[in-house]
Amino acid sequence: MPRFSTSVSALRSSAIRELMSLASRPDIISFAGGMPGNELFPVEEVEELFRHLDPKAKRAAFQYGPTPGLPSLLESLGGFLERKGLPVKKNRLMITTGSQQALNILAKAFVDPGDRVLTEYPCFIGAIAAFRSCGAEIVSIPVDEEGIDIGLLEAESIRTDPAKFLYVTPYFHNPAGMLYSTDRKRQLIATLQGKDIPLIEDDAYGDLWFSEEHLDRLKPIKAIDPEGIDVCYTGSFSKILGPGLRLGWLLAPEPIFEKCELIKQSADACSPSFTQVIADAFIRSGKIEPYIASVRQEYQRRATCMSEALRRHLPGYVHWNEPKGGFYIWLTLPEGTDASTILKRAIEGGAVFVIGSTFDPQGTRNNAMRLSYCNNSPEEINRGVPIIADAIRSICG
Amino acid sequence: MPRFSTSVSALRSSAIRELMSLASRPDIISFAGGMPGNELFPVEEVEELFRHLDPKAKRAAFQYGPTPGLPSLLESLGGFLERKGLPVKKNRLMITTGSQQALNILAKAFVDPGDRVLTEYPCFIGAIAAFRSCGAEIVSIPVDEEGIDIGLLEAESIRTDPAKFLYVTPYFHNPAGMLYSTDRKRQLIATLQGKDIPLIEDDAYGDLWFSEEHLDRLKPIKAIDPEGIDVCYTGSFSKILGPGLRLGWLLAPEPIFEKCELIKQSADACSPSFTQVIADAFIRSGKIEPYIASVRQEYQRRATCMSEALRRHLPGYVHWNEPKGGFYIWLTLPEGTDASTILKRAIEGGAVFVIGSTFDPQGTRNNAMRLSYCNNSPEEINRGVPIIADAIRSICG
Repeated sequence: MPRFSTSVSALRSSAIRELMSLASRPDIISFAGGMPGNELFPVEEVEELFRHLDPKAKRAAFQYGPTPGLPSLLESLGGFLERKGLPVKKNRLMITTGSQQALNILAKAFVDPGDRVLTEYPCFIGAIAAFRSCGAEIVSIPVDEEGIDIGLLEAESIRTDPAKFLYVTPYFHNPAGMLYSTDRKRQLIATLQGKDIPLIEDDAYGDLWFSEEHLDRLKPIKAIDPEGIDVCYTGSFSKILGPGLRLGWLLAPEPIFEKCELIKQSADACSPSFTQVIADAFIRSGKIEPYIASVRQEYQRRATCMSEALRRHLPGYVHWNEPKGGFYIWLTLPEGTDASTILKRAIEGGAVFVIGSTFDPQGTRNNAMRLSYCNNSPEEINRGVPIIADAIRSICG
Repeated sequence: MPRFSTSVSALRSSAIRELMSLASRPDIISFAGGMPGNELFPVEEVEELFRHLDPKAKRAAFQYGPTPGLPSLLESLGGFLERKGLPVKKNRLMITTGSQQALNILAKAFVDPGDRVLTEYPCFIGAIAAFRSCGAEIVSIPVDEEGIDIGLLEAESIRTDPAKFLYVTPYFHNPAGMLYSTDRKRQLIATLQGKDIPLIEDDAYGDLWFSEEHLDRLKPIKAIDPEGIDVCYTGSFSKILGPGLRLGWLLAPEPIFEKCELIKQSADACSPSFTQVIADAFIRSGKIEPYIASVRQEYQRRATCMSEALRRHLPGYVHWNEPKGGFYIWLTLPEGTDASTILKRAIEGGAVFVIGSTFDPQGTRNNAMRLSYCNNSPEEINRGVPIIADAIRSICG
């Protein structure tokens, strides 16, 4: 009799772990990680805020809290989300242990082993792992520079056994970097309306825009609040305060929220009160908006530096888009290229990135690669990009 | 087609939530919670420790960490566990988001829907929820004042379709309060040896003993390290630092650890670095041992006060054991009593507790109730116990 469960055998050890150990070597320039730069965290502000909390709030930081989150944070975060136009009062808000947990909970709420779910290709690896851990059969629909392929989505959405949900990351996509166009969002909404396929809208990077001209494209589908689609909106403090706090959120219609609350109760009882108290103080102090503005500017500086370096060094047959926000640039290589061979060369040269197949739910398509600029100085970027470009040339000519 | 998954429909909203809202009313004395007293948390010590961390450690507190935990905490916690005699080096240690997450991960590693797992009766509600969320069929084996019923365990363990694991909480059981005898542990080990049924040993309360004479009984089965049983040992900072940090641990053999690491990756990527940095500093500063000694003393004071009050006020037909440690006293009422009716009366009188059926995986047996003394002053205990005793008399005569 097999000892372990079926669902765990569907989980694969990702190559990311190995990359991360390479990435910590001082002689290697890493464009692999998806973490904010350590030097950008608001350490002193948070320490100061904690010091001035009243003793009751400090003690509450050590105590269990309600499963959906500390009431004070639900209120302050609710206000933060309402200022983005999100329909907080028409839905229920839950604090999760990172938005990774929100994806895991949603998968558990909807998916029985063998059920189909729809994602984009490429797709955030955390989502692939969460969906697979529930035994989902993942059907991935390609994106272009404006969003998901609507024709393919339409074909999937009219099947007689509808998928359990569609998962998308429309705002500075991980790993594709792309921002959905307003038109593509409109088409996506029209395709799903009345189809009984809930939408999971992952907005972990939306605050990190580089130009106000894109604010319109950044309006969440959840904020558009379309009739006839259950939108489950997820977000995170990871990119706007610090991933080490492990705080994300889920905004969902009441019936879905109720199931998710039971699942969260059985998963970890509640998210850390300690960091919830901190996040609450960070929002209430008014420090979050200027902090976001400052990291936005810093990531834009790094992004600009990387795109300039790519323009200078990459061969013309590599396709990529100028980043409009977020952390990533996605390079598409000539059809048939195996990015693993390029990675091997790049490591020899002293730089790492993540290969495309990591973000493919089928794990096969590999003529692409993700470069992060979020955690590198301009100097590192300027040293690292030529190494990547040389590695590409050495394989693709 | 049903919208939600099968596993979520197995989860039930527990009555605990409603009780907790009652428990927060100032006019009600609550013996319902399982949380440490707010006034006992080492708030100033932790603030002081954080202030003196070097800037690098502070920044790391905001960053993602490795899935199994921050290396520095794995090292310091490993030392803490080795001082209890646990075979840390022969196993792998993982930091989890509370020990609730460790139970959830283990269930996910072993259980496919419909698989049998063995627990005690009564059983920790968090474990019931975690196991049920994976579709487990829970078979619960009664405990007496020395531990689990060995005859019934033996009968279950020789079935041709062995259960996926046995879950026990031998040290100041939640809710039964009881501490396993050394003999019963020996019998449990002999029963499981060579049976291919892993043991999950939950030791969330073991540090909270009231007398050194019990130290021998407190030696974990994991520390005895019996041949031929895979012991997965779980523990928690919740009772020895603060549940709001959401930090627990799992010590398990390598092959089980590997599966658990993949599951944790898909669950929440990593536990909060912020609170891991704090727990690490708390251990390394040497402050954890004196802190544990001080709360031990305080809980003993509360326990003594409650047992004296129970002796004074309870009718002779109510059975219970003098607590030797931990948070709880379990009252067994005459056969056929429905504790719900007693709870109703007690609430009218101004006191709450948790009814026995909450801790029954089958949700039926209800001639018992759990009283917590962990979060009450002696004055509250002395006011509350007579209310409980009156409620019992009004129903049972």
